[in-house]
Amino acid sequence: MFYHDKKTQYKVRVEKPNPAFARMLQQAIGGIEGEMRVCLQYLFQAWNARGPVKYRDMLLDTGTEEISHIEMLATAVALNLEGAPLSVQESAIKQDGVVGAVLGGMNPRQFLSAGLGALAYDAEGVPFSGAYVVGSGNLMADMYTNVAAESTGRALATRLWEITDDPGMKDMLSFMIARDTMHQQQWLAVIEELGGAKGLPIPNSFPQSKENQEFSYAFITPNIDGTGTPEGRWTHGTSIDGNGQFSVLKAQPYGDEPKLAPPVPEGHAQTEQMTVSDTIIGNVKDAFS
Amino acid sequence: MFYHDKKTQYKVRVEKPNPAFARMLQQAIGGIEGEMRVCLQYLFQAWNARGPVKYRDMLLDTGTEEISHIEMLATAVALNLEGAPLSVQESAIKQDGVVGAVLGGMNPRQFLSAGLGALAYDAEGVPFSGAYVVGSGNLMADMYTNVAAESTGRALATRLWEITDDPGMKDMLSFMIARDTMHQQQWLAVIEELGGAKGLPIPNSFPQSKENQEFSYAFITPNIDGTGTPEGRWTHGTSIDGNGQFSVLKAQPYGDEPKLAPPVPEGHAQTEQMTVSDTIIGNVKDAFS
Amino acid sequence: MFYHDKKTQYKVRVEKPNPAFARMLQQAIGGIEGEMRVCLQYLFQAWNARGPVKYRDMLLDTGTEEISHIEMLATAVALNLEGAPLSVQESAIKQDGVVGAVLGGMNPRQFLSAGLGALAYDAEGVPFSGAYVVGSGNLMADMYTNVAAESTGRALATRLWEITDDPGMKDMLSFMIARDTMHQQQWLAVIEELGGAKGLPIPNSFPQSKENQEFSYAFITPNIDGTGTPEGRWTHGTSIDGNGQFSVLKAQPYGDEPKLAPPVPEGHAQTEQMTVSDTIIGNVKDAFS
Amino acid sequence: MFYHDKKTQYKVRVEKPNPAFARMLQQAIGGIEGEMRVCLQYLFQAWNARGPVKYRDMLLDTGTEEISHIEMLATAVALNLEGAPLSVQESAIKQDGVVGAVLGGMNPRQFLSAGLGALAYDAEGVPFSGAYVVGSGNLMADMYTNVAAESTGRALATRLWEITDDPGMKDMLSFMIARDTMHQQQWLAVIEELGGAKGLPIPNSFPQSKENQEFSYAFITPNIDGTGTPEGRWTHGTSIDGNGQFSVLKAQPYGDEPKLAPPVPEGHAQTEQMTVSDTIIGNVKDAFS
Amino acid sequence: MFYHDKKTQYKVRVEKPNPAFARMLQQAIGGIEGEMRVCLQYLFQAWNARGPVKYRDMLLDTGTEEISHIEMLATAVALNLEGAPLSVQESAIKQDGVVGAVLGGMNPRQFLSAGLGALAYDAEGVPFSGAYVVGSGNLMADMYTNVAAESTGRALATRLWEITDDPGMKDMLSFMIARDTMHQQQWLAVIEELGGAKGLPIPNSFPQSKENQEFSYAFITPNIDGTGTPEGRWTHGTSIDGNGQFSVLKAQPYGDEPKLAPPVPEGHAQTEQMTVSDTIIGNVKDAFS
Amino acid sequence: MFYHDKKTQYKVRVEKPNPAFARMLQQAIGGIEGEMRVCLQYLFQAWNARGPVKYRDMLLDTGTEEISHIEMLATAVALNLEGAPLSVQESAIKQDGVVGAVLGGMNPRQFLSAGLGALAYDAEGVPFSGAYVVGSGNLMADMYTNVAAESTGRALATRLWEITDDPGMKDMLSFMIARDTMHQQQWLAVIEELGGAKGLPIPNSFPQSKENQEFSYAFITPNIDGTGTPEGRWTHGTSIDGNGQFSVLKAQPYGDEPKLAPPVPEGHAQTEQMTVSDTIIGNVKDAFS
Repeated sequence: MFYHDKKTQYKVRVEKPNPAFARMLQQAIGGIEGEMRVCLQYLFQAWNARGPVKYRDMLLDTGTEEISHIEMLATAVALNLEGAPLSVQESAIKQDGVVGAVLGGMNPRQFLSAGLGALAYDAEGVPFSGAYVVGSGNLMADMYTNVAAESTGRALATRLWEITDDPGMKDMLSFMIARDTMHQQQWLAVIEELGGAKGLPIPNSFPQSKENQEFSYAFITPNIDGTGTPEGRWTHGTSIDGNGQFSVLKAQPYGDEPKLAPPVPEGHAQTEQMTVSDTIIGNVKDAFS
Repeated sequence: MFYHDKKTQYKVRVEKPNPAFARMLQQAIGGIEGEMRVCLQYLFQAWNARGPVKYRDMLLDTGTEEISHIEMLATAVALNLEGAPLSVQESAIKQDGVVGAVLGGMNPRQFLSAGLGALAYDAEGVPFSGAYVVGSGNLMADMYTNVAAESTGRALATRLWEITDDPGMKDMLSFMIARDTMHQQQWLAVIEELGGAKGLPIPNSFPQSKENQEFSYAFITPNIDGTGTPEGRWTHGTSIDGNGQFSVLKAQPYGDEPKLAPPVPEGHAQTEQMTVSDTIIGNVKDAFS
Repeated sequence: MFYHDKKTQYKVRVEKPNPAFARMLQQAIGGIEGEMRVCLQYLFQAWNARGPVKYRDMLLDTGTEEISHIEMLATAVALNLEGAPLSVQESAIKQDGVVGAVLGGMNPRQFLSAGLGALAYDAEGVPFSGAYVVGSGNLMADMYTNVAAESTGRALATRLWEITDDPGMKDMLSFMIARDTMHQQQWLAVIEELGGAKGLPIPNSFPQSKENQEFSYAFITPNIDGTGTPEGRWTHGTSIDGNGQFSVLKAQPYGDEPKLAPPVPEGHAQTEQMTVSDTIIGNVKDAFS
Repeated sequence: MFYHDKKTQYKVRVEKPNPAFARMLQQAIGGIEGEMRVCLQYLFQAWNARGPVKYRDMLLDTGTEEISHIEMLATAVALNLEGAPLSVQESAIKQDGVVGAVLGGMNPRQFLSAGLGALAYDAEGVPFSGAYVVGSGNLMADMYTNVAAESTGRALATRLWEITDDPGMKDMLSFMIARDTMHQQQWLAVIEELGGAKGLPIPNSFPQSKENQEFSYAFITPNIDGTGTPEGRWTHGTSIDGNGQFSVLKAQPYGDEPKLAPPVPEGHAQTEQMTVSDTIIGNVKDAFS
Repeated sequence: MFYHDKKTQYKVRVEKPNPAFARMLQQAIGGIEGEMRVCLQYLFQAWNARGPVKYRDMLLDTGTEEISHIEMLATAVALNLEGAPLSVQESAIKQDGVVGAVLGGMNPRQFLSAGLGALAYDAEGVPFSGAYVVGSGNLMADMYTNVAAESTGRALATRLWEITDDPGMKDMLSFMIARDTMHQQQWLAVIEELGGAKGLPIPNSFPQSKENQEFSYAFITPNIDGTGTPEGRWTHGTSIDGNGQFSVLKAQPYGDEPKLAPPVPEGHAQTEQMTVSDTIIGNVKDAFS
Repeated sequence: MFYHDKKTQYKVRVEKPNPAFARMLQQAIGGIEGEMRVCLQYLFQAWNARGPVKYRDMLLDTGTEEISHIEMLATAVALNLEGAPLSVQESAIKQDGVVGAVLGGMNPRQFLSAGLGALAYDAEGVPFSGAYVVGSGNLMADMYTNVAAESTGRALATRLWEITDDPGMKDMLSFMIARDTMHQQQWLAVIEELGGAKGLPIPNSFPQSKENQEFSYAFITPNIDGTGTPEGRWTHGTSIDGNGQFSVLKAQPYGDEPKLAPPVPEGHAQTEQMTVSDTIIGNVKDAFS
């Protein structure tokens, strides 16, 4: 279960409120690479955790930390909105570009729906989706998913850092970027602890004898312009998991043209689909006559 | 640009059509861990690729291969639906459980909306979302995202392999599982080629001097039940990137309680929010009188 | 900021795991009337709170409690899935209805995507949406929204209580139903504290002199079958806010037929839309010749 | 503006309530080919109509009729749910297939969220989306969109007619199928009135001299298996609009390989993307040593 | 069933078309607090109504009125778009801010997809969702949901009133604000008619003896910073429903740490999850060597 | 299966990068009338095709061509973003309108989430949805759906052509507009080949004797303002399919007021809904006393 205190995990200061930046910050709240996603992802992974308990506990810790990050960002949004222009009236148009560039560049719903506050949405006003929350039941798959989330999340945070020059916001983001560094590290540490390459391919509990091993380490190139694909680590040498040798295959079909049964009567396709009919041939003739 | 031939990349055979399995296969088509996602993800990453051209080319190759996988799965859905019961009539109820367990366990829309065919939806009938398609502009972040996608994708494929005993379906899946093996390998090969740990933290182009390094390698534990978090690779020793030493910090607030300005008049909060009013205090008194 | 311990807020016991019930419980996790919604709703309302601090603090308290409720439900899902049938093979079809009624009535993604665990989705597999999270910036509007959420939430919990006979699940739900009782009470207590009817209409900071008061207390009936609408508290007597007298108006248009300008050339409507043309008239004539 | 009376447009009778059929009917309410879509589509097209007023008026008429169709279907859902089994208890499992095949095959939310009523969702529990509502501002494009909607809608209605044997439901559907017939006819009648082929290509207000006419009537075949595409009406002869001659072109690239600029520093790609670096080459060498 | 006439319910005049305001108005059409939501919500509640018929009839009346409100707003959008700049060309950039602040601040899809018309979307271009439409089957829960919808809806309308200075738009909104006043009143009137506090807790048909009454009137505070939660109407005294006494409880766990079974083989977790293995311990040792 | 080469189907040149135009182009990628939709629509229709193989082959050809169109548009987005302003700093505000009109009018996620690249989203940042992909199993219904898609798609392309003055972009769009012309033609050619009006009503495999033919060719007008609906091709004369005579009917109810059963106990409606109670009547009296 969960507790809180009223202070934030780190300082949230805004010296020069900027409604356009309030819009940008929404991406770090409700975007696919944002904090709601990692928060819920780590918590659901913890709650569904089967196997060694220590990973469950670690996931709970970091999932809990992420709630505090959503709080900081939501607070930053509210502070950045203070002083936003709130009019689409004509004088504003003349001075600031059309309509103050729509209320100072903010998401209009931050005013219309929230009275100058944060929303559970991304920077384009798209609602956060539970579909972003991945917990596969396979610990290694989840750890790679988490590294990915913290990598795109840290990229987002560095971009936000670049587009603001507010010292308070830069300071808050420098904390969050550091936490993303650590979170990348800790998921990679679990991967190392679980054996690194020994854990591959993921899931490693499926016997490789049951996959079609002819295709397990072959790079398939469907490129037909004659230039091929440049050589790389993936085209020859021992595979990363040490279980095979990389090779290159030109793409080709190993299957046939699909043959589907005719439509069932209850599905009410067009009559012409049900029998390859003289009618169709007749119509074609008509069309050319 | 793109070309096709009419044959499938690998054999698609169904010996015993099973409409419930047709529903399951939809997850591998339109689910977040499915083939539409990786197909579009690799293609968008290729189209947006800035930097060394070889990665763009490789992404194009594998993105193109994945279109062929969607085709195989869609064909498998259509074949599994042949012979599905198409009635909610009473006699069916008596024999097969309620209403033939809803048309043999299939997604009813596979009949109602597609006349016994595949949909761009997942196993629960939720439409595929472009939000699943991640291309961050950072190659390393993208590679981890791709490993994650192929890991959850291969887990899905092995689960589908387990729940069917149709030899044709098992054969097709054994091919797809092998391709997921290779695709995990090739994204990991790029990570290795880009320097592995030298690429951390992602993005490595942001100077770590600008993050708050006090917090870059500290595991923060907000657990307050006195049991702490078990030790692990992430609690001490040199960090995975080699740039720091792991440590543990008990969670504590470094910030203050947020102070937001009062509501602006144009936002039409309740009057009672605008001034900490005697009215409210009066009302409380009234409530107890 | 936030903390946790490893125990759950209340006991989560499942005596007879039931995968169909695991599906139902998802509604209480990720549905519009579920715990993710109220959790995030109260937290965002707190983070955006402007005005008296005590309401912010109370919202933080209850928002934090709701995280613990999601945890209990997710745990209940995982426990209900233990022992679920995992096959669409033929023998299962013969015995249990078609395909074990699709893996025992569970959401197939609870297996395929989560390895027998909870998802951030509702009972029909639709992802939780940030759009469910309402925080309007008006405290009274938010309180009514919260009463509504706890009313539909408690209705859901009582329905879940009815369809299970597992003593552990009934016990857990009897706790949650009690908490929903309290949460309804506390939001109503805020409404009372803010003056009850004195807070109406919401927002009460908009001067009623600026609304078109001719229509502020009139029930408009667009019913034209001659039977009218039955009388009720809303058809006569003093209004609930005490500011007017209810009356009944038969619906009628006070406006005119809309007149829109013709299409702009850049919008490329059909040519026939741009001038009320002789061509159209000609075509009509042709059609009848 | 709008009025109603309390009776339905056509009889809604259910002799043998069937909760699985209640689920199916949801597709006709909230599905992309359902009545909410056509209702809102015709109304929005009317409200946005620029050009001859008669089409606006006709769209208003039929949009209004469709509200009555939603009403009939929602009523049919409520009636089909009466008597649904409401238990996941063990005895039900033994008798009827697992958990009565999940409450008789119904959408569980029809009970959990609506207390045995209709939802604004499709047959798979996916919420209706405003994205289905197309009104392009081009009358001809809208008319073809409407014919398409009524065609998939009528296909759906005939499939629903097939899977039920309830005489009341068959009767209601036979009315709706007839209305879909008429609605197809009337949108086609507008197309004829607007000149039929003279209205092509849509929009006809864009001068064809500004399109690249080399490609306006050529069927491009990217098939490379040597079998080509079978001949059809679209491969030779005068085009449907009479403005060109159909021909066939083998697909080929007329463009070059894209060349994107390197990443901007503020976007924080990996360092290795910014300069084609010796580091990468070095890493590759390391990988093979 | 439903009827219409061609006039609007109230005057829709726009003196100074403003494309940025056209974007804002979309929130009142397709937003969660908009007219499509209340329209469909009241109609679905009516169509699903079980119990006293008078509430069904009232819901039908007001649901029908709301269609007329969507019509007024859609018309207002179309009128506000007339004269919008339609170019991203360079001269515009120089004069008006970048690209005329994107076509005058309008939603670009109002031009691109609708040819200068309204969409079934909110102010951020997110499609209306059927998930917003709540009809719980419990009349009291529905009435609170409706009060909530009209409260956030009226707050939205007053904010729109503030940001425009067009006399026609202010006049139209003053009518809509008045109607929101009445609609709040009438749902509250039903609550009063159903007994007010006697209807609590909602649903009142679930016997309170079956909830865990130890927790029914206790405010639980998981705040651990030592400052507690300020006193309020909800911390002591008789509860709002008169059935209990409010009290305060410090949050504590009444449950245990969850214990989930190990993963099933078919779910293909990592091997390391299936047995708490020596391998893991070995790997950890390796990591530190 | 599928192949590619590295060149684009047609030239993609951008002379004056324009981030606002990059946003607009997203509609042609991920919007409902965009290329992802038609690409996937034609491919799914092909993969599900039952009946004459030639249509399957043609759909595969054109579906494959559309992948190349997505590629061109994504490339155009990346090129248009080069040189975009990347700052919300104060000096920018002063010069260019508020915050450079939010980063030059671009979708902020094109920078924040993609590092200056294309997304699988529309012009308003809403993710592409698999729900846009229609394949009904009825060939004629699909062909009309395809004509509709290419009509709204061509309208979109002409509007994009109008708002840019970049010669490279105009050239690329003039190619795409031409391809949309051809694609309209080819789907219409299939309709002609299938018999044109002989294929009506769609589906033509449902016997018209089973629809309620009294209503098959009657235009129903629910207009009650006395002005009626103007005459048109749809009000009299032979129907388009030649099977009937158009007529006009004034709307009237053929059904009764719905009668739903009272709520079931397990659904926990309010007690007052279950019996038409004296309590309610009493409460009403109280309300007026």
